[in-house]
Amino acid sequence: MDRRLFLGAAGGAAALAAPAIAQTNPEIRWRMPSSFPRTLDVLYGSCERLGRRVAELTDGKFRITPFPAGEIVPALQVLDSVQQGSVECGHTPALFYFGKEPALAFFTCVPFGMNRRQMAAWMRYGDGMKLADELFAGFNCIFMNFGDTGTQMGGWFRNEIRGMQDVRGLKFRIAGLGGLVFERLGAVPTQIAPGDIYPSLERGVIDAAEFIGPYDDEKLGLNRIARFYNSPGFWEPCSMGGFVANRTAWNALPAHYRTAVEVALGEIDTDQNARYDALNPPALRRLIAGGAQLRSWPREVMQTAWREAHGLYEDLSGRSPAFRKVWDNYRTFRNEQYQWFRVVDNAFDNFAFAEAARS
Amino acid sequence: MDRRLFLGAAGGAAALAAPAIAQTNPEIRWRMPSSFPRTLDVLYGSCERLGRRVAELTDGKFRITPFPAGEIVPALQVLDSVQQGSVECGHTPALFYFGKEPALAFFTCVPFGMNRRQMAAWMRYGDGMKLADELFAGFNCIFMNFGDTGTQMGGWFRNEIRGMQDVRGLKFRIAGLGGLVFERLGAVPTQIAPGDIYPSLERGVIDAAEFIGPYDDEKLGLNRIARFYNSPGFWEPCSMGGFVANRTAWNALPAHYRTAVEVALGEIDTDQNARYDALNPPALRRLIAGGAQLRSWPREVMQTAWREAHGLYEDLSGRSPAFRKVWDNYRTFRNEQYQWFRVVDNAFDNFAFAEAARS
Repeated sequence: MDRRLFLGAAGGAAALAAPAIAQTNPEIRWRMPSSFPRTLDVLYGSCERLGRRVAELTDGKFRITPFPAGEIVPALQVLDSVQQGSVECGHTPALFYFGKEPALAFFTCVPFGMNRRQMAAWMRYGDGMKLADELFAGFNCIFMNFGDTGTQMGGWFRNEIRGMQDVRGLKFRIAGLGGLVFERLGAVPTQIAPGDIYPSLERGVIDAAEFIGPYDDEKLGLNRIARFYNSPGFWEPCSMGGFVANRTAWNALPAHYRTAVEVALGEIDTDQNARYDALNPPALRRLIAGGAQLRSWPREVMQTAWREAHGLYEDLSGRSPAFRKVWDNYRTFRNEQYQWFRVVDNAFDNFAFAEAARS
Repeated sequence: MDRRLFLGAAGGAAALAAPAIAQTNPEIRWRMPSSFPRTLDVLYGSCERLGRRVAELTDGKFRITPFPAGEIVPALQVLDSVQQGSVECGHTPALFYFGKEPALAFFTCVPFGMNRRQMAAWMRYGDGMKLADELFAGFNCIFMNFGDTGTQMGGWFRNEIRGMQDVRGLKFRIAGLGGLVFERLGAVPTQIAPGDIYPSLERGVIDAAEFIGPYDDEKLGLNRIARFYNSPGFWEPCSMGGFVANRTAWNALPAHYRTAVEVALGEIDTDQNARYDALNPPALRRLIAGGAQLRSWPREVMQTAWREAHGLYEDLSGRSPAFRKVWDNYRTFRNEQYQWFRVVDNAFDNFAFAEAARS
């Protein structure tokens, strides 16, 4: 995230030596279609925050205007539009373009992958940013992470899942790599637009649906028709948003405009997750008051899913050299992070959370 | 962290309506003494990053120059110097000024308090920032959080701690509220400057010492003389850095300079923790290869400490109305966050970390 580390320092020194050559603030307007609707107000709110912060930092001269999904670009075509240059940038999860290149999934989240903090470490101080940059160069884009949800919930189920027998044949609304893992578990993953989830569940077209977390899930009202609310969404241990910009347009920006975007996205990395962490607990309480029954995934299902997810990564590594390259790097970093977090952060969390519940 | 939410939007619109009235970038130089030495390169590195980012965002006109502890201001007098206006701003943990007002501790960390993500939620979307602002107004300062370490390690011990009997009489280098909790456990907490820890442990002046985490602890070489390395540092579930600025100087800054500081600190919030998360695992491996023996605190000690910490908070609430006010707010938010994290993030972490270790 620190593309201008050296350039910036040099630029700063030069500016001091020759203060007469002031930075110019050219008027630049960028459009930023999002893959999400305005109703997902935390995700979409981060788009608005980016626009506001960048304007504040550039004397109102660099304006990035967000547009909700479908308003100027369809939700699943944001990357294509940015690549072609019909818009300059976009807000879209890399995972949505998994069909073009499976390795893109690592830059949103993968089943049994890293959590939000571990991803930040990999992106910034591991090879994450470098690997993302290599991949997105193939789409004539640059990529930076754009907020995170934290670990997501594991979906709504009409019938309680007690073991693998209840997963087989389950018609489950779940996309991406999570869907491929559930397919290997014998389920029937389907992709349904958010607005169609409620009627599909109500009519029995599907048996279950996963979405995001309590605050966003509440808006869909699924607790009224599928009361079992599973946790955790092991296929989404974090969910990193994506800022993509057309590489040509990005490189043409004044350096300090690029810095303004980078720094604002850095702030949003903490801010969006903090907002979800503050909003989710009361939303979960309301959902439970409204009939939701919290359930943990059966251990048997999670262990089978762990095995199948890793089998899937082997298969995908055989099919895509890019996937193999990123997975090798990601897995090594993940395993080291997992070990480290067990020693300290997770040890603290386990003790304190349980002790607070007892007292 | 979004002091300019409304002001900024209005300012942006005005700038668009009247583009001729450009923002002026006056040359402003601030000095920022840190409470930490240059050798703590992650903590001090965040000071350098702040200076660099703010310069990049202001055409090199607003320069914040950091100084290591003791170079222009002694480590423990940063707040005083900023309050008096002898320097404009500083990098110092609020906890260091616990003696002036115990409630300040909440804005670094407290024993069995919130972890790094939960703190971010409280600061940004709970009442954290507002309460900090009230407290620091009493010192003619503004406060913003400035990076985090994540949960710290629990210190180095010459003899293994097997239960409460080994804690009684223990001469333990530990500061702040952690020290007060250990005093209630029958230990003898002492405060020793980092440079004196090694000789004090070697000569038996102290039996144990806690510092930060593997990456920073490694520099002190304590594993050579006190091989038991305890985890977790339950008195530091996170450790939030502090940016303090003289309120008069802060309010005199152009609004976009204030925004530049706020956004850069937001980026650092993620960046510093990510850097520690990337550096700590290999450092821990090197320490273990160098003779460190990892130990978990005995459950009995942690449970007694939990009880005594909460007893301490009641005592302090009786002595300081400000402490009572912040603790009431903090505790409610903490308990809700603890419950929520148990449901999802912690449930994922527990399964995945253990499963990776098994496979």
